Amino acid sequence: MSDTVKYLLDETRLPKAWYNINADLPEPLAPVLHPGTKQPITPDDLAVIFPRAVIEQEMSTEREIEIPQPVRDVYRQWRPSPLFRARRLEKALDTPARIYYKYEGVSPAGSHKPNTAIAQAFYNQQEGVKRITTETGAGQWGSSLALAGTFFGLEIVVYMVRVSFDHKPYRRAYMESFGAQCIGSPSNTTAAGRAILAEHPDSTGSLGIAISEAVELAAQRDDTKYALGSVLNHVLLHQTVTGIEAKEQMAMADDYPDLIIGCTGGGSNFAGLAFPFLEERLRQGRDIEFIAVEPSACPTLTKGAFAYDFGDTAQLTPLVKMYTLGSGFVPPGFHAGGLRYHGMAPQISHLSKLGLLKPRSYNQLECFAAGIQFAKAEGILPAPEANHAVRGAIHEAEKCREAGESKAILFNLCGHGHFDMQAYMDYSAGKLKDLVYDDSEVAMALAGLPSVG
Amino acid sequence: MSDTVKYLLDETRLPKAWYNINADLPEPLAPVLHPGTKQPITPDDLAVIFPRAVIEQEMSTEREIEIPQPVRDVYRQWRPSPLFRARRLEKALDTPARIYYKYEGVSPAGSHKPNTAIAQAFYNQQEGVKRITTETGAGQWGSSLALAGTFFGLEIVVYMVRVSFDHKPYRRAYMESFGAQCIGSPSNTTAAGRAILAEHPDSTGSLGIAISEAVELAAQRDDTKYALGSVLNHVLLHQTVTGIEAKEQMAMADDYPDLIIGCTGGGSNFAGLAFPFLEERLRQGRDIEFIAVEPSACPTLTKGAFAYDFGDTAQLTPLVKMYTLGSGFVPPGFHAGGLRYHGMAPQISHLSKLGLLKPRSYNQLECFAAGIQFAKAEGILPAPEANHAVRGAIHEAEKCREAGESKAILFNLCGHGHFDMQAYMDYSAGKLKDLVYDDSEVAMALAGLPSVG
Repeated sequence: MSDTVKYLLDETRLPKAWYNINADLPEPLAPVLHPGTKQPITPDDLAVIFPRAVIEQEMSTEREIEIPQPVRDVYRQWRPSPLFRARRLEKALDTPARIYYKYEGVSPAGSHKPNTAIAQAFYNQQEGVKRITTETGAGQWGSSLALAGTFFGLEIVVYMVRVSFDHKPYRRAYMESFGAQCIGSPSNTTAAGRAILAEHPDSTGSLGIAISEAVELAAQRDDTKYALGSVLNHVLLHQTVTGIEAKEQMAMADDYPDLIIGCTGGGSNFAGLAFPFLEERLRQGRDIEFIAVEPSACPTLTKGAFAYDFGDTAQLTPLVKMYTLGSGFVPPGFHAGGLRYHGMAPQISHLSKLGLLKPRSYNQLECFAAGIQFAKAEGILPAPEANHAVRGAIHEAEKCREAGESKAILFNLCGHGHFDMQAYMDYSAGKLKDLVYDDSEVAMALAGLPSVG
Repeated sequence: MSDTVKYLLDETRLPKAWYNINADLPEPLAPVLHPGTKQPITPDDLAVIFPRAVIEQEMSTEREIEIPQPVRDVYRQWRPSPLFRARRLEKALDTPARIYYKYEGVSPAGSHKPNTAIAQAFYNQQEGVKRITTETGAGQWGSSLALAGTFFGLEIVVYMVRVSFDHKPYRRAYMESFGAQCIGSPSNTTAAGRAILAEHPDSTGSLGIAISEAVELAAQRDDTKYALGSVLNHVLLHQTVTGIEAKEQMAMADDYPDLIIGCTGGGSNFAGLAFPFLEERLRQGRDIEFIAVEPSACPTLTKGAFAYDFGDTAQLTPLVKMYTLGSGFVPPGFHAGGLRYHGMAPQISHLSKLGLLKPRSYNQLECFAAGIQFAKAEGILPAPEANHAVRGAIHEAEKCREAGESKAILFNLCGHGHFDMQAYMDYSAGKLKDLVYDDSEVAMALAGLPSVG
């Protein structure tokens, strides 16, 4: 048996509840603070931009949170997603490692993002919201919310980071096909956007800036809320559907992961796969290693400070304790737009601080090379973000080969690269280079961190 | 229950044999003729460009032809593909019709084409072939053969119709990511290409021209064969895996189709879904209607002649009896590149002639409108080719609404539109128009049909 093997769960095995890691953290998360008072934030503070159900989930410490039936009804269109044993890749690498990947590119939007987009759209619709604003980097999240909007009859407004807006018109067209409105950020539609443009008319934008704009617009109208595609607890919670499925699928394969690998921009796809396994490490002492892979040009976990910071550039959001390169830092315009974020999910940051996961960074060129190698073996061309996880998995498999060790490596192939062909063209043409962030910019951004308590 | 329902077969239900409709035709197909002698062609004649196993299948009248295990091992990566009951679309259309679609966009290349690409690559590899040449229109077929090439270690050379080569660089980049060589056609690499360029330096190309180039290159070297992505019996045979699965899935849904709809360029995706059901009409007298949808700008079945013609423009291929607009006809450059072909599969043509299927044509704008309507309801953005089937299904569902009739409509959603976003952008921007073929060009091309017997 030398061919790649698929492990597919019956639809009846679609999880009925998400897993909330806050129930099992060895130490609780630092509280989220109000940006003005710097006191712990209240549900009422958040109600301006989020529906009540989402705020409850954000603060919950219940271990299991039920997935509403209408959300499961939409999930069923592509879930449970397949888990593959990458036997062709193993053969190409000549490694004794057993490589598995959970493939989230089977969703209609092509990534893991609909797992939370569908849930958030549902909760908003339940509470009478008519319009949702959001930001998007590479476009995966904006596409997913556009999709969710069409399923639940909501208007969607997407602020798309300028560099992606210009370089990925097809992603934009995809969102617009589902009826979403897509605005290049920074834009003239918000005070936050205008302020940035006044100072940097040629700004390539950033997720931090786009968040500022989306939050500002949401706060202006009662029928409008804001949705975030990563970072926050409830988003990571919704993603755990992938890891819960993967546990069953690894059991089908009669195997168990020694290593779990994911790419981290805001942290949601990594968390989605890792947390349900981390539960088994925390509660049952299972021996699993977790590796969070980030781009060397935006090395939040590996080079950032663990501190209170804003989630956005205009400093409109609450303060969260996380690894950050400073909310004033604008990462270079590399091609994995979904990983261009100054901060990191508080839960991921906390786990990294506690030593429960190991962060690692790779450069863009080695990640594209890994993606091509993967595609030629497995037939799926990954998104540039996912290439970071692929690079991590290949690296570990090569270490196994050198050590003559057969580890089980499981990674999250969080999306396909169909909308990223320009990046692959540039890579193949030798036009891409490894980008380096500006040390002094990070130092300046970190010096500007808000002082808390 | 108002949400779209998925019917998914267990991997153990992956078909073990393809269905060969030649076993059940009420009258046999007209023989294929040698282009020089105009006598029935022999296996030896075909051996220059096809492997023996493929030639045998082309001529077989066995009802069931076993799917080799290595082919099934690759199929398993995405097959059995899902069949959906489009309840959200039904609701949006307010129709009593029950609309089902088989979704072939789940393959790594995003269409039904790998069903035959994998099989053809396998047979070639078995017979020691090192290189396969082919043509591609929209790029779906070229992508699929590129994928198959990487799985079976074969070099792939793709002649891509010039209009698509220029307008779809991302499709090209996708093929190249898998290691395939992609050449815009007509090109200077073949005598056929050079002849066209001498006469029409700005030729937008056509499938007919690209086939000439690919066949010419294949005939030059012993280690090189040619593969076709549609039209021929063996290609349609390989596609029947979709209809065989769909029969089981319709049974899971406790329903049976009254109508089966597919788009037809060369005829393979339509045949793949329709033939296994047509078997039940032919052998058991089941009452099912079959509708083949083609573009009004290339109306082969609805306006062509039923006659012997060449499959390509340079008149290198054998002569087949089919509906044709004349091998000299170059269809206008509309966006469903996969449907820009002067001819039609002999099997489909024969069935149409016998009245066993009904051809119908639609214009490009109404097809894009149908695709957007489908996407907003079902969350999947179809390829422009597939939009023709969607248009047909919506049209029939609307007729059901008017008549107050609840028919079961099953169509083949043969691919997604991720690589067709330029077309959607042009459509949304109002830049697309309905294209009209030139009557006098068709008349001239038909006047040039070869005289036979």
